[in-house]
Amino acid sequence: MTQHDAAPALLATLAERLGTAHVLTSPEDLAPHLVEWRGLYKGSALALVRPADTAEVAFAVAACAQAGVPVVAHGGNTGLVGGGVPTGGIVLSLTRLSDIRAIDPVNATITVEAGAILADVQAAADAAGMHFPLSLASEGSCRIGGNLATNAGGTGVLAYGNARDLVLGLEVVLADGRVWDGLKGLRKDNAGYDLKHLFIGAEGTLGIITGAVLKLFPKPVSRSVGFVGLASPRAALALFERLRAAAGPSLTAFEFLPRFGLEIVLKHLSGALPPLAGAHGCYALVEISTARPGADTASDLETMLGEALEEGLAEDATIAASEAQNAALWALRENLSDVQSLEGGSIKHDVSVPLSRLADFLETATAACEAAMPGLRVCAFGHFGDGNVHFNLSQPLGMDKAAFLAEWGRFNRIVHDIVHGMGGSIAAEHGIGLIKRDELGLYGDPVGLDLMRRIKAALDPHDILNPGKVVALSANPPAALPAG
Amino acid sequence: MTQHDAAPALLATLAERLGTAHVLTSPEDLAPHLVEWRGLYKGSALALVRPADTAEVAFAVAACAQAGVPVVAHGGNTGLVGGGVPTGGIVLSLTRLSDIRAIDPVNATITVEAGAILADVQAAADAAGMHFPLSLASEGSCRIGGNLATNAGGTGVLAYGNARDLVLGLEVVLADGRVWDGLKGLRKDNAGYDLKHLFIGAEGTLGIITGAVLKLFPKPVSRSVGFVGLASPRAALALFERLRAAAGPSLTAFEFLPRFGLEIVLKHLSGALPPLAGAHGCYALVEISTARPGADTASDLETMLGEALEEGLAEDATIAASEAQNAALWALRENLSDVQSLEGGSIKHDVSVPLSRLADFLETATAACEAAMPGLRVCAFGHFGDGNVHFNLSQPLGMDKAAFLAEWGRFNRIVHDIVHGMGGSIAAEHGIGLIKRDELGLYGDPVGLDLMRRIKAALDPHDILNPGKVVALSANPPAALPAG
Repeated sequence: MTQHDAAPALLATLAERLGTAHVLTSPEDLAPHLVEWRGLYKGSALALVRPADTAEVAFAVAACAQAGVPVVAHGGNTGLVGGGVPTGGIVLSLTRLSDIRAIDPVNATITVEAGAILADVQAAADAAGMHFPLSLASEGSCRIGGNLATNAGGTGVLAYGNARDLVLGLEVVLADGRVWDGLKGLRKDNAGYDLKHLFIGAEGTLGIITGAVLKLFPKPVSRSVGFVGLASPRAALALFERLRAAAGPSLTAFEFLPRFGLEIVLKHLSGALPPLAGAHGCYALVEISTARPGADTASDLETMLGEALEEGLAEDATIAASEAQNAALWALRENLSDVQSLEGGSIKHDVSVPLSRLADFLETATAACEAAMPGLRVCAFGHFGDGNVHFNLSQPLGMDKAAFLAEWGRFNRIVHDIVHGMGGSIAAEHGIGLIKRDELGLYGDPVGLDLMRRIKAALDPHDILNPGKVVALSANPPAALPAG
Repeated sequence: MTQHDAAPALLATLAERLGTAHVLTSPEDLAPHLVEWRGLYKGSALALVRPADTAEVAFAVAACAQAGVPVVAHGGNTGLVGGGVPTGGIVLSLTRLSDIRAIDPVNATITVEAGAILADVQAAADAAGMHFPLSLASEGSCRIGGNLATNAGGTGVLAYGNARDLVLGLEVVLADGRVWDGLKGLRKDNAGYDLKHLFIGAEGTLGIITGAVLKLFPKPVSRSVGFVGLASPRAALALFERLRAAAGPSLTAFEFLPRFGLEIVLKHLSGALPPLAGAHGCYALVEISTARPGADTASDLETMLGEALEEGLAEDATIAASEAQNAALWALRENLSDVQSLEGGSIKHDVSVPLSRLADFLETATAACEAAMPGLRVCAFGHFGDGNVHFNLSQPLGMDKAAFLAEWGRFNRIVHDIVHGMGGSIAAEHGIGLIKRDELGLYGDPVGLDLMRRIKAALDPHDILNPGKVVALSANPPAALPAG
């Protein structure tokens, strides 16, 4: 029986339990769930299913498993690698599981449902006098379950770690519809294998996260942002080392922009002002923040940057004098990804290397790409302090966009070969999804890939959960069609 | 063919590759590897095998797998839960893999072999001007591979996390002798499932860790230790909350001692002096340290503790005036476990609960145990700030030691029932091993236990690696005989 034969009975079963209002099949209801943010893929689905709680998620997955129909979990559908594109089957939306279940200020934890919007989790922590540090561009619409399923990075990683590092406990619906209750709020727990880390970052292929216990932190009381003009990535690395030593855990951001990046932000972003008088080879946005009462981060940052200027590590620097100026400097960095789309086609790479290789990587990969296509404009920016850059390539001026994007595979090879040779990762913070599944097959350690397939087969033997993503179990995995 | 039939050929194969000097079968050579630190179990083994490098580990495991002979990996054999006790088969010692392979100060990483002694890893980091924060009582003899296989805790967890949190990459020999090369030094890597967390804390049952890339931190430049007299665990919790808010990541230790604990340390530890003039209900050892240049932790701690005294949170407090005094205060805490053995039999529990329940737990469990056996002396101490206490029970004065220890199971039930009811863990930092395997079966989430067995079966289908530990695959798992 194919999944289409099974579909009517399955949908009737689901509608009976969840209500007809929450089993949707019209093209208009399905449409937003068949595409992803970048518009690279267009999938298909039998229905959009919206369970109300964990028990209904478990019911829906069990019913799909019995019918042999695959399930793709959706939160905010803000992923960047096609990990949420359905290839037939059911889209299971977690948006109705949006409760903040509990906040425990003494334990410094918050217990949330998977469908809670990241910004709402941040706000709930803030209202309790605490800080939830996960922060990324889509925080107003992405949902925490998706953040955990993709082990999201963002701008808080340098001081607080990736999404993975913020999790103490999970509740997960497995491929057969059983529920694993691992919702513990413990700093120390060595009672058997650590199961939570298996589901975090697995992009919904091993289980569907329905709830989580997350760490909270003391709320920073003082924050200062600086913008620094630098001669080169090598100078940026030297400055980073200096600030890391001087500020330790108070160094909460060290972001990188190339000269081209700042130029296009100033060109396209309404109201953006040049932060420094002159132009420089590249720029760092640095942030110092701390919860230490009485701390004066502005004075600390001034001392640190003053020394860096005196010693020639930095060419110029400015420090924001208010929260409004802090936000204005951050806006230069945060809008870079968006404005880059106004410069035509962009071929994107989300890579990381050991910090000691980051300047080498930027120089080598930039030279290799520029040599491969004259006029290409490298726009490598991002989370420098994490060793993670979005090594994006803007098309040459005047080139046909489609012709440029057709070269994506060729530039993958150039950039990923260099990354791989430096012991780096071809998927630093956005994950594998569909877009990098075959790249992972190319660069992943063969023994590690075999382990991943064994784990997938052990936890989801019938390939029900988000099939064809991350690692392909079958010889002919389903492929979503490119949208354009 | 039983493993004894296969033994001569296997040992000959191993001796040919590793050299006869490294395949040892004499009772004297085997003896120290058949028992564990507490002397609770005595196992048996065919041979002690000492490979020189990862390739030899892989060869040995492959040969054992082919012969159907189990393999137990040993580092320093300092585990506390019988996880290293062999039940037949081969003891594979990692002690010859003791190199520090590389230090990268810019990336803030150190690459080590599994057999490196923890103190040597700390020293290598220190010599490079960095800090490796994992620290525990056995650091002079335990080895990093064992620390990772057990996800060791210790005294650095509050600020730096468990052993797990210090790992960026791993090299692991699998049950069939293949080598997974996951030795990456990246802060961000979402290229597929996170395999390293599966092996960390799995106590050698899923793979044998042969190497690791570990995080380093800026070296603290200022450290101050205080010792605080408190009315009750509830007061300790209030003080902890206060210090966490005031010091943030600079609060690098918050350890707890009961009145009985300090008394027996002062009674038995040569040269120990009372830190405070009077006696109190319980005590906290607190440490503030930071890498921030120019920081004055003594003055910061004085301010914080002064406020706590003024507000009645603390009854008395002292602050060490030198590194020697810092060490003397730490010695009061660090020797507690040892001196407790001088007070007769001790029934031990290594548990954690959410911090918000810790004072409740200490009160409830103490009352329940004292009610269950008049004269029992509760010695609950440890890593209060992590929610982790060693809830140890010293026998009543004059009671027969063996008769007391025979009650271990009864007290497990009392203490672990309370822990479980509070959402805690019955195995916070020492792991499961043999001693808690059946307790895990009792308290573990059934779905979670099934997942653990599926993972074990997927990665080690023939139960070659440390069989019978953590989770039992077979219906009749091997059991090491109690030693006494």
